Amino acid sequence: MGRSAPSRPILFLSDFGLDDEYVGICHAVIARLAPTVPVIDLTHGIPPEDVMAGAVALAGAVPYAPPEAVVLAVVDPGVGTERRGVAVDAGGLTLVAPDNGLLGLALMALGGPEGAVALDPGRVSPWPVSSTFHARDVFSPAAARLASGESLTDLGEAIDVDELSELMVGEPLVESDRISTTVIGIDRFGNLRLGARAADLREAGLAEEPVLVLDPEGGSVPLRRVATFGDLDRDELGVLIDSAGWVAVVCNMASAADRLGLGRSDRAVLARGRVG
Amino acid sequence: MGRSAPSRPILFLSDFGLDDEYVGICHAVIARLAPTVPVIDLTHGIPPEDVMAGAVALAGAVPYAPPEAVVLAVVDPGVGTERRGVAVDAGGLTLVAPDNGLLGLALMALGGPEGAVALDPGRVSPWPVSSTFHARDVFSPAAARLASGESLTDLGEAIDVDELSELMVGEPLVESDRISTTVIGIDRFGNLRLGARAADLREAGLAEEPVLVLDPEGGSVPLRRVATFGDLDRDELGVLIDSAGWVAVVCNMASAADRLGLGRSDRAVLARGRVG
Amino acid sequence: MGRSAPSRPILFLSDFGLDDEYVGICHAVIARLAPTVPVIDLTHGIPPEDVMAGAVALAGAVPYAPPEAVVLAVVDPGVGTERRGVAVDAGGLTLVAPDNGLLGLALMALGGPEGAVALDPGRVSPWPVSSTFHARDVFSPAAARLASGESLTDLGEAIDVDELSELMVGEPLVESDRISTTVIGIDRFGNLRLGARAADLREAGLAEEPVLVLDPEGGSVPLRRVATFGDLDRDELGVLIDSAGWVAVVCNMASAADRLGLGRSDRAVLARGRVG
Repeated sequence: MGRSAPSRPILFLSDFGLDDEYVGICHAVIARLAPTVPVIDLTHGIPPEDVMAGAVALAGAVPYAPPEAVVLAVVDPGVGTERRGVAVDAGGLTLVAPDNGLLGLALMALGGPEGAVALDPGRVSPWPVSSTFHARDVFSPAAARLASGESLTDLGEAIDVDELSELMVGEPLVESDRISTTVIGIDRFGNLRLGARAADLREAGLAEEPVLVLDPEGGSVPLRRVATFGDLDRDELGVLIDSAGWVAVVCNMASAADRLGLGRSDRAVLARGRVG
Repeated sequence: MGRSAPSRPILFLSDFGLDDEYVGICHAVIARLAPTVPVIDLTHGIPPEDVMAGAVALAGAVPYAPPEAVVLAVVDPGVGTERRGVAVDAGGLTLVAPDNGLLGLALMALGGPEGAVALDPGRVSPWPVSSTFHARDVFSPAAARLASGESLTDLGEAIDVDELSELMVGEPLVESDRISTTVIGIDRFGNLRLGARAADLREAGLAEEPVLVLDPEGGSVPLRRVATFGDLDRDELGVLIDSAGWVAVVCNMASAADRLGLGRSDRAVLARGRVG
Repeated sequence: MGRSAPSRPILFLSDFGLDDEYVGICHAVIARLAPTVPVIDLTHGIPPEDVMAGAVALAGAVPYAPPEAVVLAVVDPGVGTERRGVAVDAGGLTLVAPDNGLLGLALMALGGPEGAVALDPGRVSPWPVSSTFHARDVFSPAAARLASGESLTDLGEAIDVDELSELMVGEPLVESDRISTTVIGIDRFGNLRLGARAADLREAGLAEEPVLVLDPEGGSVPLRRVATFGDLDRDELGVLIDSAGWVAVVCNMASAADRLGLGRSDRAVLARGRVG
């Protein structure tokens, strides 16, 4: 056999957290199978079993992935059940994950899936597959193989990309002067990421000075439209387009989440002026 | 001097957490001394000074270590006192740690220690040794040297492997229809790892449908015996053999620890049927 | 073009935490621009927007950096405002950061700045620069370029090192038998790092047996002067010089912060004997 294909870096995202040894074991498995492959931890802080949060984080990261990177993504409440694992080619990357919608937004950001296989654990895993830790036994080995130059079809049978699970994403309800959506993420700084994009603000005619309406009884809070945190006074609330293109409610030098008492999945309505 | 030996990857576990700069400084030290050596963080989330928890995590990881890896493990309540540091060969790996029992379960998983030295700080450290941060001054340099090809006996005097500190592990009490043990770990998902293995379940005749008895007054809670989380209904409690071979009490899409109000080191009794 | 300069490792510190994808995206950006450059995470657990805490952590780490390392440090409450980014040469390292004082203590530890440039985002960034994520768009690309062998002046115009922002550090008030300072950091073990050094203890004549005085009404607590945690009895409070040279109040096998009810920035007075 001639010189093997050059290695591809792996981008790794999961909901495992870093307090347990699960992420480290996956790294060890990859180092066993592909010693020279660099592994970049995207994040392992996705809330446990929150496929939607994982999908949002992944979609924000893939535009910055090195060309030809392999993406290893595991948020997998169905581990060990009939749900299958997949590997999918898109935009020069190959993405490995349980087929539960986790890849949906990232594939969209990459221009759509170009080919996919259902992972065959018997072909992929170097050891008997456990019922509860497929990241170790199937997904990491699959990523390591792809990063070492194996092709998609070495890992399982081709499937139609239209068969890939889709993620149920609640689209924002965009009306004139009003956007109804939810909080899809809260970061360490307490910034509230809403399920709406800059285009939704424009479509609703709210590119200027929206108001956040807390529901059900919450009254309304004025938000200044700014470009960045420091455009606000200390502790002032505002709205901006965040670094991944989402509408975000923020507070300068403080947590907007704490100030507004809002959490993940809470409803959030942006509207012009004061709304009763 | 000819070509140096090929470098060995380092697997690094500690109780330092990631909020402080301690882990990063150890990485920097290793990069100074052995620039091309890859370092894999196994976990740094071991509860502070919890040698037993570190030992359990390490034992679950070493079977997946790359061949010839160097394991750097630091949970070290006795730093700066008379307790010695050691480096131990086992199963192709070399393990570096304070000699306080942290390596006990891992060495057992690797087939037992084959040789050991007491680390000589004067030989190992590139600078004066502090009283409070031997991970930086002694253990990381020792691991870097081993990873770069130095041999065990370059780091200190050989000691008898029978002199290595042992970990006091409470063996489960296995009776007919009953296993008494403790919670030895709780992971991010709230899964309760008990101090018992599949063989203990079989020996007690409880491989089928055990009951968890909360003590002292707690009554009992039925647990379904399953292979994986998704075999349970949402929020149903069950028992399974986890990915490291331990008996675990789990809950589908929820935290078993929260549901049962159990914490690390709490007593846990598995028994057949209802127990008063 | 001939052979490029050998790559320099990057040391990365931020206040981003690891629960969001921000750190991972920066790693991905560096891997795109400089695929072979190793990146060492110093810590990302600096409290949000706490420039002083970042400065202290950085100063403790740079003495252990590999020679020629590039330091990437981002604690940046002013992102997107007029505050500039800088790259600074000192002691063989190059440090990249917002010009807000974050580098102050590290530059001092490295012998002072030798040259600096104001980062020109248009020259540095491979894509349009966002208003809220300069770590991704400016600082990581700048670090990747430096690590790949570009020189300081490739990244922007030279500035006078005397123009660099300084950090307002409260110096301890050192009197005979008394040091008044603050808690500048609390680590995972609950050790309280005070804003004073061994020399301050000597100057105050307190190298032997100081007393911690809680203010305003708190009375006083005796502290034993020791070299390391294990010199104290279990749960006993003491004072030692920590691994970065700071005076620290510690408790053997327990958290001094919890025991004393002290937090970051709280006033702390060390004095001889009992003080009313």
